[in-house]
Amino acid sequence: MQPKVSIIMGSTSDLPVMKKAADFLNDLKIPFEINALSAHRTPAQVETFAKGAEDRGIKVIIAAAGMAAHLPGVIASMVKIPVIGVPINASLDGMDALLSIAQMPPGIPVATVGINGAQNAGILAAQMIATGDAETSQKLANFKESLKDKIVKANEDLKEVKYEFKTN
Amino acid sequence: MQPKVSIIMGSTSDLPVMKKAADFLNDLKIPFEINALSAHRTPAQVETFAKGAEDRGIKVIIAAAGMAAHLPGVIASMVKIPVIGVPINASLDGMDALLSIAQMPPGIPVATVGINGAQNAGILAAQMIATGDAETSQKLANFKESLKDKIVKANEDLKEVKYEFKTN
Amino acid sequence: MQPKVSIIMGSTSDLPVMKKAADFLNDLKIPFEINALSAHRTPAQVETFAKGAEDRGIKVIIAAAGMAAHLPGVIASMVKIPVIGVPINASLDGMDALLSIAQMPPGIPVATVGINGAQNAGILAAQMIATGDAETSQKLANFKESLKDKIVKANEDLKEVKYEFKTN
Amino acid sequence: MQPKVSIIMGSTSDLPVMKKAADFLNDLKIPFEINALSAHRTPAQVETFAKGAEDRGIKVIIAAAGMAAHLPGVIASMVKIPVIGVPINASLDGMDALLSIAQMPPGIPVATVGINGAQNAGILAAQMIATGDAETSQKLANFKESLKDKIVKANEDLKEVKYEFKTN
Amino acid sequence: MQPKVSIIMGSTSDLPVMKKAADFLNDLKIPFEINALSAHRTPAQVETFAKGAEDRGIKVIIAAAGMAAHLPGVIASMVKIPVIGVPINASLDGMDALLSIAQMPPGIPVATVGINGAQNAGILAAQMIATGDAETSQKLANFKESLKDKIVKANEDLKEVKYEFKTN
Amino acid sequence: MQPKVSIIMGSTSDLPVMKKAADFLNDLKIPFEINALSAHRTPAQVETFAKGAEDRGIKVIIAAAGMAAHLPGVIASMVKIPVIGVPINASLDGMDALLSIAQMPPGIPVATVGINGAQNAGILAAQMIATGDAETSQKLANFKESLKDKIVKANEDLKEVKYEFKTN
Amino acid sequence: MQPKVSIIMGSTSDLPVMKKAADFLNDLKIPFEINALSAHRTPAQVETFAKGAEDRGIKVIIAAAGMAAHLPGVIASMVKIPVIGVPINASLDGMDALLSIAQMPPGIPVATVGINGAQNAGILAAQMIATGDAETSQKLANFKESLKDKIVKANEDLKEVKYEFKTN
Amino acid sequence: MQPKVSIIMGSTSDLPVMKKAADFLNDLKIPFEINALSAHRTPAQVETFAKGAEDRGIKVIIAAAGMAAHLPGVIASMVKIPVIGVPINASLDGMDALLSIAQMPPGIPVATVGINGAQNAGILAAQMIATGDAETSQKLANFKESLKDKIVKANEDLKEVKYEFKTN
Repeated sequence: MQPKVSIIMGSTSDLPVMKKAADFLNDLKIPFEINALSAHRTPAQVETFAKGAEDRGIKVIIAAAGMAAHLPGVIASMVKIPVIGVPINASLDGMDALLSIAQMPPGIPVATVGINGAQNAGILAAQMIATGDAETSQKLANFKESLKDKIVKANEDLKEVKYEFKTN
Repeated sequence: MQPKVSIIMGSTSDLPVMKKAADFLNDLKIPFEINALSAHRTPAQVETFAKGAEDRGIKVIIAAAGMAAHLPGVIASMVKIPVIGVPINASLDGMDALLSIAQMPPGIPVATVGINGAQNAGILAAQMIATGDAETSQKLANFKESLKDKIVKANEDLKEVKYEFKTN
Repeated sequence: MQPKVSIIMGSTSDLPVMKKAADFLNDLKIPFEINALSAHRTPAQVETFAKGAEDRGIKVIIAAAGMAAHLPGVIASMVKIPVIGVPINASLDGMDALLSIAQMPPGIPVATVGINGAQNAGILAAQMIATGDAETSQKLANFKESLKDKIVKANEDLKEVKYEFKTN
Repeated sequence: MQPKVSIIMGSTSDLPVMKKAADFLNDLKIPFEINALSAHRTPAQVETFAKGAEDRGIKVIIAAAGMAAHLPGVIASMVKIPVIGVPINASLDGMDALLSIAQMPPGIPVATVGINGAQNAGILAAQMIATGDAETSQKLANFKESLKDKIVKANEDLKEVKYEFKTN
Repeated sequence: MQPKVSIIMGSTSDLPVMKKAADFLNDLKIPFEINALSAHRTPAQVETFAKGAEDRGIKVIIAAAGMAAHLPGVIASMVKIPVIGVPINASLDGMDALLSIAQMPPGIPVATVGINGAQNAGILAAQMIATGDAETSQKLANFKESLKDKIVKANEDLKEVKYEFKTN
Repeated sequence: MQPKVSIIMGSTSDLPVMKKAADFLNDLKIPFEINALSAHRTPAQVETFAKGAEDRGIKVIIAAAGMAAHLPGVIASMVKIPVIGVPINASLDGMDALLSIAQMPPGIPVATVGINGAQNAGILAAQMIATGDAETSQKLANFKESLKDKIVKANEDLKEVKYEFKTN
Repeated sequence: MQPKVSIIMGSTSDLPVMKKAADFLNDLKIPFEINALSAHRTPAQVETFAKGAEDRGIKVIIAAAGMAAHLPGVIASMVKIPVIGVPINASLDGMDALLSIAQMPPGIPVATVGINGAQNAGILAAQMIATGDAETSQKLANFKESLKDKIVKANEDLKEVKYEFKTN
Repeated sequence: MQPKVSIIMGSTSDLPVMKKAADFLNDLKIPFEINALSAHRTPAQVETFAKGAEDRGIKVIIAAAGMAAHLPGVIASMVKIPVIGVPINASLDGMDALLSIAQMPPGIPVATVGINGAQNAGILAAQMIATGDAETSQKLANFKESLKDKIVKANEDLKEVKYEFKTN
């Protein structure tokens, strides 16, 4: 099984957040890999990884980082495929990571999701892959439909909230 | 010619910024359309647009908005294809737009680029399309290569800067 | 009993905050309803809700949302009645929600209260309804008078604080 | 002619911003007054004004202030009718005024609009008055409809933008 | 015993912070009073308090408030004596209170201390009183001298920290 | 003539801002001096200045600084008299200077005014001096009274603003 | 043993953070001292310390401070050797300390590391010392090499994470 | 002449800011080179540069970058010598660059100076070189002494400022 999405993070401490990207890809049966890489600790490996990713069939890279979060941008500078950046809240409520990832200079985009927004990164990766894949596209339609369930359930719960002047 | 990318903005005042997305797509010969839409002024048209986009063959949507920038997220809630959000600097240095676009709740991602980062939105759209398109992928490789030219030129200019103790 | 105020929120997790709006309306015997809606998960239902609200006699809508908080603005784009927005603190101390709600573009206002300011949203809704309702207006006068009680009580407590050089 | 809306500001330097509230009310034929008041320079007059406003038939107050913007909150503490606050950008991009107006403590709401959002304040005032006034409600419906015109016009302008690969 | 300093706060919940101002004044044997007042809940009492303060011999007012912290500025608008403002951290890390207190418009200063900086407010009040009071001035000199003690103690503790290559 | 207030700044570039403090003191006939000092460029002179200030009869020090604004706090660490800090907007809209001045640690207060708030610094200094000086106190009362004039004038100007539905 | 690096902090409460600087220097066998000093509590001792540091053979100073963090800048104004500043998170997530240390005016630099970034301060000090010391330089090379270990270990851990569609 | 300091920047547009670093090094007769490099446009060249710098005798690197400013951190990950980072104000008042440079994760420090603080970067580089170079150390002492001149001049200018109640 050849991975289509590569999830990279700088530390296993990011795993509880990034698990949600893996969960989503797994649910949609999109093969993926997970690796630890650090723009600062292992610059040589980052380069090796980036240069090989496309040849190994990787279509999208999801890169998570906190603080001065360079990993997504550094990877993006080395590949032609889209890179999704997940700012991790490690300090300053994640604002440093958000700015370090989103504010890339012209020429080298990173598709940034919200702070700790790993599930959204997984969905976005699936959307990119679905561009040329009707089956994944259908699964995304199903997922989108299922988003309503939480609201249906919430309305059921809210019906149980009782006030004298509450009308529903 | 059927468009593959749809660029939408809330006002022609965003055109000077968003032109850079159009320029990039045009340079890569990727057909695109440009429309004005407003999440707040024309909610019905946004829905009509969103529902029809995929059927018309649109693969990626680029949506620009400033201030409480809802357009990218609202579009994203209505389509399965990827939506790229461009925060426009209309107030607070663009910080309000960046947060209104990037901080989407779980389930509905927007691929956010930097403030006024329209060229990067165009590149990202091309990267997504290149997933299943070797020609566009090659053009992106050429573009990536060309990014070095600006640095080569800069080094030539910097050689002309003279100091007694400057060694190069 | 026909509701005059409609409280909407994206999730039951907002209920502990939003309960204070319901409490206030209930105390003033203003009929209200509570529903879950999501600008992003259920855009079609949001539209159905918004278009029907005025016909059902709703005079004011209170909409709560966190992060990239689009719900109040999206509702406001679809109705003529006033919409009160409550920024929920779900990330970044609620600053993202405050900006996503308050910084609406010209033409579509949202009456924004403070972060997690649900009681104030309830009071503001009552003030709007009191515009044409002398009984509610009188109840608001009573409520305003009662605000002093907390200060009277605080002064009694502060009298118990003893210091050698404290004179009161 | 008895005014229904009272616009107050701390200085004539706020007039270029606040004019948009007056323009909107005038267009909707809602009688209004404009006065200068300062929470800090004329506290006694603020009190006299606030106490008399309701008796004079004022239904809504629009109060503008910059920096440590206390005027809207101070007025709100003295009246039962709704107070709309307009944060003026006089320093720190208006962030100080936004926080000084929006972050009111429980019990005394101010309906806050965006920074320099005077037109939205005028619309919100009209929405509140329309609660019991079918004619104003109809005018708001017309205004809402007219918001689309700017987008229609923008689309016409965007049609004139020519690119080889632009399809519309 | 006639108070020279008046400490006011909006709620007994501010007492754990504001106690440090009282402690300092008590240590310096400067008579003070503590009262609860609210710019928003009891505007009339604020006025009564402010107008009477100077006649009762108050030389300095210390006013604490959180969120949209208007109390110090509102008091300052009504008195000629100096007002010291203490921003309380009740939301947004206290940044809203700091800006609401410090950014006063020209003409009505508030002497702002740091967020939750109640001891510094007490010291500042004592410094103002010491302007015409040699005894208090001497006590402040003693206090200033005592500040060193904490550093002397810290150095003793740090001596106990052992490392092979630590030289002291 | 012996100065009672000492205005210090790090550079003559601060003079256009700080002039307003001098203007106010001059208007109230309070003798003052103006000197340039820098916490970073002339630390020894700062110490000499600080140690001599009280002996020369200085009652209050006004210190202005921008960026990492250490001057007010450094002076405050060396004197017993009150130090008023004026954050100068030299970068980051003055937010760096505001925090560097206001957020002093316990034990060493600086009475902080708003960004570029030099007039307020002058008024605050006068208020401190008026503690033991009835004549200055009366002048402050006159000044406070005169603050209303700007509002009276503004109301006259606003009367000239004509709208069909403006009632005053 | 003569110290080459001097670590100073304002309080033993900073020790848990600053310990990491000491740990690093100790590991590299670089002699260091630790002292408590306060720009505000002990200005005279700061001066004595600063003036003597170079004569005692100190090559680099590491200074930690929180809030309005003046210590690093004040020390830097008194010495010719490099000063490394560590912003301590004591309020506002450490943003006040970061700005108070980094935003030094022209002429007096402080080498600022990240908020609570004590280990990086230790490494930076070692890098400066290694400029003229091949042995320390080699140890830094070894340390740099060892940074990869954490990533190797992380990859081993990530291999244990199992998903049906995880390929590695 | 072999360079001891290497100044790198991403664009000649940074030259007007970075010139001040070059000016300072030239004044102190410290040989330096200036090159354009981009972490994102020329990642391969960055690596080549970094790996060769130490062998070519470079003792310190000064790297300038704006927005998501990765260059200083990326260089720092590849060298053992100290890297000084200069945040360039290209957006958001330079706050994005400051955080992207200062908030480096543990293990890879960047010595960060203030926003656009190029002269301070030059001074810091000279301080590092002076560690093992008495002549440069003496020049730094002279420079430090000269910092007072600006204050002496400022005091002369301030003497010319005339007020009736100005005493000096």
